[in-house]
Amino acid sequence: MLEYKAPMRDIEFLVNDLLDYKSHYEALGFEDADPDTVQAILGEAAKFAEEVVGPLNQSGDQEGCKWEDGVVTTPKGFKEAYKQYCEAGWPSLPGAPELGGQGLPASLTMIITEMVGSANWSWSMYPGLSNAATRLLNATGSDEQKELYLKKLISGEWTGTMCLTESHAGSDLGLLRTKATENADGSYNITGTKIFISCGEHDMADNIVHLVLARIEGAPEGTSGISLFVAPKFLLDENGNPGERNSLECGSIEHKMGIKASATCVMNFDSAKGWLVGKPNEGLKGMFHMMNAARVGTATQGVAMAEQGYQGGLAYAKDRLQMRSLTGPKNENGPADPIIVHPDVRRMLLTQKAFSEGNRAFMYWVNQLVDQEVYGNEEVSKEAEAMLDFLTPIAKAFATETGLEVANHGMQLYGGHGFIGEWGMEQVVRDGRIATLYEGTTGIQALDLLGRKVMGSGGALLANFTKVVHKYCKANEGVAEMAEFIEPLAKLNNELGELTGKIGEKAMQNADEVGAASVDYLMYSGYIVLAFMWARMAEVALKDADNGFMKSKIKTAQFYYARLLPRTIAHRDAMLSGSDNLMSLDEELFAF
Amino acid sequence: MLEYKAPMRDIEFLVNDLLDYKSHYEALGFEDADPDTVQAILGEAAKFAEEVVGPLNQSGDQEGCKWEDGVVTTPKGFKEAYKQYCEAGWPSLPGAPELGGQGLPASLTMIITEMVGSANWSWSMYPGLSNAATRLLNATGSDEQKELYLKKLISGEWTGTMCLTESHAGSDLGLLRTKATENADGSYNITGTKIFISCGEHDMADNIVHLVLARIEGAPEGTSGISLFVAPKFLLDENGNPGERNSLECGSIEHKMGIKASATCVMNFDSAKGWLVGKPNEGLKGMFHMMNAARVGTATQGVAMAEQGYQGGLAYAKDRLQMRSLTGPKNENGPADPIIVHPDVRRMLLTQKAFSEGNRAFMYWVNQLVDQEVYGNEEVSKEAEAMLDFLTPIAKAFATETGLEVANHGMQLYGGHGFIGEWGMEQVVRDGRIATLYEGTTGIQALDLLGRKVMGSGGALLANFTKVVHKYCKANEGVAEMAEFIEPLAKLNNELGELTGKIGEKAMQNADEVGAASVDYLMYSGYIVLAFMWARMAEVALKDADNGFMKSKIKTAQFYYARLLPRTIAHRDAMLSGSDNLMSLDEELFAF
Repeated sequence: MLEYKAPMRDIEFLVNDLLDYKSHYEALGFEDADPDTVQAILGEAAKFAEEVVGPLNQSGDQEGCKWEDGVVTTPKGFKEAYKQYCEAGWPSLPGAPELGGQGLPASLTMIITEMVGSANWSWSMYPGLSNAATRLLNATGSDEQKELYLKKLISGEWTGTMCLTESHAGSDLGLLRTKATENADGSYNITGTKIFISCGEHDMADNIVHLVLARIEGAPEGTSGISLFVAPKFLLDENGNPGERNSLECGSIEHKMGIKASATCVMNFDSAKGWLVGKPNEGLKGMFHMMNAARVGTATQGVAMAEQGYQGGLAYAKDRLQMRSLTGPKNENGPADPIIVHPDVRRMLLTQKAFSEGNRAFMYWVNQLVDQEVYGNEEVSKEAEAMLDFLTPIAKAFATETGLEVANHGMQLYGGHGFIGEWGMEQVVRDGRIATLYEGTTGIQALDLLGRKVMGSGGALLANFTKVVHKYCKANEGVAEMAEFIEPLAKLNNELGELTGKIGEKAMQNADEVGAASVDYLMYSGYIVLAFMWARMAEVALKDADNGFMKSKIKTAQFYYARLLPRTIAHRDAMLSGSDNLMSLDEELFAF
Repeated sequence: MLEYKAPMRDIEFLVNDLLDYKSHYEALGFEDADPDTVQAILGEAAKFAEEVVGPLNQSGDQEGCKWEDGVVTTPKGFKEAYKQYCEAGWPSLPGAPELGGQGLPASLTMIITEMVGSANWSWSMYPGLSNAATRLLNATGSDEQKELYLKKLISGEWTGTMCLTESHAGSDLGLLRTKATENADGSYNITGTKIFISCGEHDMADNIVHLVLARIEGAPEGTSGISLFVAPKFLLDENGNPGERNSLECGSIEHKMGIKASATCVMNFDSAKGWLVGKPNEGLKGMFHMMNAARVGTATQGVAMAEQGYQGGLAYAKDRLQMRSLTGPKNENGPADPIIVHPDVRRMLLTQKAFSEGNRAFMYWVNQLVDQEVYGNEEVSKEAEAMLDFLTPIAKAFATETGLEVANHGMQLYGGHGFIGEWGMEQVVRDGRIATLYEGTTGIQALDLLGRKVMGSGGALLANFTKVVHKYCKANEGVAEMAEFIEPLAKLNNELGELTGKIGEKAMQNADEVGAASVDYLMYSGYIVLAFMWARMAEVALKDADNGFMKSKIKTAQFYYARLLPRTIAHRDAMLSGSDNLMSLDEELFAF
C-alpha cells in the first residue's frame, strides 16, 4: 500500500526560496500569513493528509460509494474524516472573515488541497467542490443568499456542488435543456437531469447546496440563455435550518474507472425549488470564472498523481532487487542490485521527478497569480488576470497529461506488480485518468489557449508571457553556469512567438488551422513553461550548490533540458504540418 | 458497450495485397492454406469473435474470476464459449497432424488470436497460454511426453500454463528458488510458490498441464541451474486419463487493474509430482524460444487494444453532437455537429488509425517471418530468425506502448463518458495496461534489443534490417508520388545506423550507455519500422488510388509521416544525451 508523505522540503523551497511567498503575502496585505503561521498551517495540513485521509485512500477505492433509493453512503471513515476536517477549521481557511472565514490567501488553500489530494483525491473532492461552490456564490450571490448559504458552506457544515453537465451537453453547455419556471414568490421550479455531479449526494453533511445551470422559460437558445440557480437539498426553514426536502434526488451514481470513493451523481430535478443567482441569462459568466479556479484545482490533481506515482516508484526502485548493474554489482552481499542502479529505471524516476517538481513549481506560481488577481489592486489584478488567462489552460492540460505519464511510470517501475491492486500503483493511474477529461478535456483547454486566448487577444496574452521569459533570459545572459538553461530557453521562447505568427497567418485563411495545431501548441507551450520553472529553480539552487537538495534540483533541471525538452521539436513539426492531413480524409473513409 | 467487428477489409489488404500470403504459404508447402480456405477460416473466426466471445467481454470484466478453497470459477459463459471453441476445432489449427492437429501455419493462428483477443482479451488468454505451452512441449518434450500431453492440449480438452515468475524473481529469473528433488522412479518432487500464473486454475478443462521452471537440488545458482518440468493438475492414470490430484494448488488469485476475467494465480507446489522436460539445467533455453513467441503474442495485444480503442472512438465521434465546426455548421438541421468535424478529434482518430493499422501490418510481417523460421528450409529459417531477433522486442514494446496510447485516445474521445464503465472504453485501457508489463517490460525489451541483439551482434542484426529498408528505398527512388515517404524514410534509416555507432562507441567506455539509450532507441526504431510499413502500404494503395479504401491508406500514411514520425527527433536527442544525466545523481538525493 502507498503511504503518502508530504514533500515538505520541496514545498518550503518553492514557498521560501523560489517564489518568496513572504513578500508576496505582505504586498497583498495578508498580515496573518507570516512565514511562521504558514509553516505551522502546512505542517498541520501535512499531518491531516498523512494520518487521516491517506490511510483511507485504498480502502475507499475498494469499498466505493453505495447508492440505495437515492441515498449515497461514502466509504468507511470518510464521514468521520470530514468531521475532523471541519472541527479543525480547514474549510474556513480562505473564507471571508465577515462570514466566519479566516481570510487566508487562496494560494495557501491550494497547497493544502495538493497535500490532501495527494493523500486521497476522492476524499478531497468533497471539500474541493464545496470550496468551488462557495467561491461562485460569494462572487455572484446576493447578500441574502450569502447570509443564508455561505456561512454554513464556509464552516463546512454544508457542502456545495456545481450542476452543469447534461447527458447531451458536456463541452457544449449551450445545448442544455434543464428548465426553470418562475413562481409567484420569485422562486423558480427547476426541472431536468444533470449528470456527472461530483458529490451531488452523500452522507457527510446536513445539507447540500446545489448551484444549477438552467434555462428560464422563453430564454434564448445557446449559451446566452443560461441562468444560475441555487437549490438546496433541504429547503431552509424560517431560521435558516434544513427543513422540508426539496424535490431533487440522486437517481444513481456512476461506475467509474477510478475516484470510486467520490460519488458521481445523476441528479434529477423535478420541479425543485431554486432561486436565481445573479441576473437572468448571465449564468455562464460567473461560471466561467469559477471554471478557471476549478481548472487550477484540476492542475493540482496533476501534481498530486505525479507525487503519488513518484513516491511509490522511488520506494520500490530502492527496495526491489533484480539483476546486476551493467557496470558491476552495487549490492555485493545481496542476491541482486536494487533496480535504481539501472539507467532506464533512473530515466523513469527522473522523468517523474522533473514533472512532479516542475509542475508543482508551475502551480505555485499560478497560485500566486490567483492571489494577485483576487486580492491585488486594480493594476496588479489586471496583470495577474492576463497572465492567468494564458497559463490556466496550459496548467490544467499539461500538468494532468504529464501527471498521467508520471503515474504510468510509477506502475511501470513495479513491473507486473504494478498491475496488482494491493500495491496501490494502478489506483494512481485509475484515479488520475479523469483529470484530462473533466473540467474541460485537453482538447478543450487547447482550443481555449490557442483560439480564445492567444489568437483572440491578437497575440497580446502570449507576448505578455514571452516578455517575462525574455526578460529573465536577458538578466541571466553571460552567467556561465546558467548558459545550459538560458540558451535553449531563449531560443524556444523566440520560436514560440514565430510559430504563433505562422499559425495565425494560416488561420486567417482557414479556421480549422487553429484546432489542427491546438493540442501540440499547448504541449509545446507547457514544456517551455516548465523549462522556465526549471531554469529558475536551478538559478536558486546554484547559489548553494553543495547542499544535497540543491544539487538534486540542478541535476533534475539538467535532466529536464536534456531528455524531456526535445519533445518540443516533435510538437512543433506536428503543429506546423497544417490542417490538411487531418481534414482531407472523408468521414466515410475512416473505416470499412 | 463496445461491439467488436473484425476489420476484414484491412486484414484482406494485408494478407492479399501487401504481404501476398498466397505465395508465402505456397513457398512453405502449405497446400491447404490456399486463399479460399484462408478466407473461409478467417470469416468463421471473425464470427466466433464477434458473436461468441465479444458479448462476454464486459460482463466478464464486471464479474471477474472467483476463487474459493483453491477452486477458480470463470465468469458466466466463459466455459461454454471454450467448449464451442474446441468443438469447432480452433485449438488444433496449428498443431502437428500426427498429434491430431490441422497443421496450418502459425501466422494464421495469429490473425485468429488478434480477432478473438480484440473481442475479449481475457478470454483469449486461456487458449493463448495453452497454445504457448503446447509449442514449448512440442519443441522440447520427449516423444512419450508428447504422446501423454500434447494430443489433449491440441484438441483443447486440457489447457496448459507457463510457471516462471516468483515473487522475488520477475525479470531476473536467475533468482528463482522453486526446488525439484529426484525420486527413485525418475520423476521429481517440486516445491515452491509461483505467482502471476495466467490461467493456472479454472473450470474450463478437465486437466491443466503446468510447465514449471525449478532448480534441481545441487544445481548451479543463477540462470544456468534452471530446469523445466511438466506437472499436471491431475496425474495421469495408466490409460492417460486424469486420475489422482497432484499436490499443487491455486493459493489465491490476484486483484488486478484489468483482464479481470483471466485468472492470475498464485500456484503452490508442495512436493508436486513433475517430470523433467529436456535436459537438466537447460530449462531456460527452450523457454526463451517460447518467450519470443509469447512476445509476438503480446504485440498482438497491442494491435487488439488499438483496434478496440479505434472502433469505439470512431463510432462515438460520428455520433456525438457537440459544438459547431469552426468553418461553419456541417449538420445544420441538428442541434450541433458530430465531433468528427473538429480537427483535434480527427488528430486523435488518425493517430489511432495510423498505429492500429500500422502495427497490424508490422505484426503480419512478423508472423510471416515466424512461419519462415519454423517451416522454412535452413537458409530461409536462419534469415527469418535473424530478422525476428531484431524485430521481436520492437514489436512487443512498440506495439503495446502505442496501443496504450490509442486506447487512451479512445477514452479521451468520449470526454467524461470515457471514464464511465458502461461505455467500455476505460476497460480497454485497464485490460491493455498489462501489455507493457508482462512478457518482459518495455525496459527489458529495450535492453534485449540494444544490448543483446544490436550490440551483441556487433551491429549485424541491425544491418540486416536497415539493408532491407535501404533496398526498398533504392527501388522507389525517383518515383515521384512516393518521394514524400521515401526521402524521410531513407534519411531516418541512415540515421539509425549512425546513432547506433555513436552509442556503441560510448558503450565501450561505459556499459551504462546502453541502458541509458535503450528505450528511446527502441521507440525510435519502432517509428522507423512503422514508417517502412506505411510506405509499403502507400505504395500498394497508389496503384488503385481512386478506390476509397486505398485513398484512406494513402492519407493515413501522409498523416503518419507528418504528425507521428517527428517524434523520432525527441527520442534521438534524448538518447544521444548520454548516461551522465541519469547516473550522476546520488541515490539518496532523489527525494528528501
